[in-house]
Amino acid sequence: MLLITKQIQQAMEGGSWIRRMFDAGIQLKKEFGEDAVCDFSLGNPDLPPPPAVADGLRAMADHAGEPFSFGYMPNAGFDWARNKLADYLSKEQGVTLQGSDVVLGCGAAGALNAFFHSVLEPGDQVFSFRPYFVEYNSYVANHGGVFSTLPSKPETFRLDPEALAAAITPKTRALIINSPNNPTGVIYTKEELAAIIAVLDDASKRNGRPIYLIADEPYRFLAFDGATVPSVLPMYDYSVVVSSFSKNLSLPGERVGYIALSPRMEGREVLVAAITMSTRTLGFVNPPVVGQHLMAAALGTQVDAGIYERRRDLMADVLRRAGYEFQMPAGAFYFFPKAPGGDDIRFVSEKLQAQRILAVPGTGFGGPGHFRLAFCVQEEVIARSYEGFKRALDS
Amino acid sequence: MLLITKQIQQAMEGGSWIRRMFDAGIQLKKEFGEDAVCDFSLGNPDLPPPPAVADGLRAMADHAGEPFSFGYMPNAGFDWARNKLADYLSKEQGVTLQGSDVVLGCGAAGALNAFFHSVLEPGDQVFSFRPYFVEYNSYVANHGGVFSTLPSKPETFRLDPEALAAAITPKTRALIINSPNNPTGVIYTKEELAAIIAVLDDASKRNGRPIYLIADEPYRFLAFDGATVPSVLPMYDYSVVVSSFSKNLSLPGERVGYIALSPRMEGREVLVAAITMSTRTLGFVNPPVVGQHLMAAALGTQVDAGIYERRRDLMADVLRRAGYEFQMPAGAFYFFPKAPGGDDIRFVSEKLQAQRILAVPGTGFGGPGHFRLAFCVQEEVIARSYEGFKRALDS
Repeated sequence: MLLITKQIQQAMEGGSWIRRMFDAGIQLKKEFGEDAVCDFSLGNPDLPPPPAVADGLRAMADHAGEPFSFGYMPNAGFDWARNKLADYLSKEQGVTLQGSDVVLGCGAAGALNAFFHSVLEPGDQVFSFRPYFVEYNSYVANHGGVFSTLPSKPETFRLDPEALAAAITPKTRALIINSPNNPTGVIYTKEELAAIIAVLDDASKRNGRPIYLIADEPYRFLAFDGATVPSVLPMYDYSVVVSSFSKNLSLPGERVGYIALSPRMEGREVLVAAITMSTRTLGFVNPPVVGQHLMAAALGTQVDAGIYERRRDLMADVLRRAGYEFQMPAGAFYFFPKAPGGDDIRFVSEKLQAQRILAVPGTGFGGPGHFRLAFCVQEEVIARSYEGFKRALDS
Repeated sequence: MLLITKQIQQAMEGGSWIRRMFDAGIQLKKEFGEDAVCDFSLGNPDLPPPPAVADGLRAMADHAGEPFSFGYMPNAGFDWARNKLADYLSKEQGVTLQGSDVVLGCGAAGALNAFFHSVLEPGDQVFSFRPYFVEYNSYVANHGGVFSTLPSKPETFRLDPEALAAAITPKTRALIINSPNNPTGVIYTKEELAAIIAVLDDASKRNGRPIYLIADEPYRFLAFDGATVPSVLPMYDYSVVVSSFSKNLSLPGERVGYIALSPRMEGREVLVAAITMSTRTLGFVNPPVVGQHLMAAALGTQVDAGIYERRRDLMADVLRRAGYEFQMPAGAFYFFPKAPGGDDIRFVSEKLQAQRILAVPGTGFGGPGHFRLAFCVQEEVIARSYEGFKRALDS
């Protein structure tokens, strides 16, 4: 008997490359032992959360016996949590945000879904530049939208305003960018963003409807060599920032994220109200209560980004010595080297796996010919991977 | 400029009666002070969580400094958490469940959405008997389904198998029931369930596709006068139980719930896999990590149901003396009395509010002519409400 839909049956057969490699890793580790595998497949931050997180848990425990300690709250999160986050983001983003400009959600993923549910009419288009975070596809399709990708500039993976201008139609509703980028590590400059925004601004006027610019920024804190990540909020009326505490506080399992609206956006109360209602009607209901307390306790602290930077340098050294072509990541914790021979699926699933090195084919990100390495792993693993990388290239 | 969709604009204008009364309550309390208002509008459990919850937080704090303490996990939740829950549910439901028969989700709401996303083809119907929990409507519509309601038996609010049989079509995919019921407090008997299941079983065979029976059971622990709540899992191949720890552990804000599949369902691995994938693609990603630890720490304990039972008796006494007609709730923490005069919206928003008593019109649950009182409030509030109830009736 037909237990599930045809559509989900197909989606399951397609699967996600990231999860598929995650499962392959579990198998290899069972077979050969943890220490025999170099697992660069999953962006699961391995640094422990900052000490303020444990303090936050203890403080909550002291009040856990009170009524409503874990009770329902407004669907956008506690007012005090929104206010505290708005203060923090005002400094980070260089604009003045009120608590009412921010909606807390169940991770950045939850916030994005609530946003798309609020703004997408049936058939509305959402664009992203390739390569991109594959889950965007589902988040748009969930709400009747059509997700399409655009080419970024060859070799450099930088934003291409001309490609955007050529693709926009009256049905275009949003462009989603991710900087520092997963999987390329690119940070977009202010000039690049301005060029993209000029295209969006023109088209919004032509369409008589805003085209949103969504900046997905979970890796903002991870900009190396003193680089800064420009904020889009002061640059464009219809810009929003989506992010979470999964990476900077190493809290991905607790699902706390947010969406912040540009204070330049006129009439944004109605959008905030819609995102808030969507958070409820989609079944998220509210961001997890413990996560909000931990966010408040730890806001302003973060994991040691210097550790990630040292790993990046070590990984670059390993790859260079082993003979790989790659662009140095300016931020985030991923390398996106060229797949030797050009066939990334074959290189990852045959050559690298034979060396017990786990990576994700670029095809899984709409970037074939490359592969992704997540370097949120111990330096020892990176150093040990050299021989395997070399043999995979030579084999 | 059009910031949101027309559809969500309309939905916001409709709003939810529960939230509308919640907001009215905030206003009244501001104006007259907390102690001048009797707020029976929201089912936000006021009993503190059991002590095991605070212990669970402290235990987590002791390990918060370890890598991956808050890391990503499988989308269905930790294996140890699923196994522990399966053991608990095996006893509660009278069937043998494995961890692989259970998927943890972001509250019962998250689990329901992941389920509907997995089983609803476009236009598939989902039924519920009136009155019902209004959010079901959104949870079905979110995934392309059509939600419709059926009349329950007059006066008693009991299940009506004939109404179900008459309504079923080849597009029918599920019936969702809620026992003990919000808002009526009815507990369905084994005989009632068997009659409904016979209809579903016949129709499934006729349709060549299963019609699921979804038992939504957050109030299972709250059955008064020694009543028991029969389990559907041993009774029907295509039955699932959905629930959460929002009420029995007073943890609604942390968003931990689950769906459990009948072990009679052949080939259910594929449904479990689909629900798991839907949890990811809908943006829930995984149930909150802290919530899973707290569930595991507190499973088997619960808030003192005796307190709720005393409040029920007190509320019944107040309503009886004030002259209201109602059916005694057998479970959950709601009364659903008849609205004097018949117009529930007018009675609630004019007569009761004038007495600073907050309730929700039955219309908000598809049950006009009645109103809902949530008695998860202090006995003092219930006792104090007598005069207001009396005056509202006499006015």
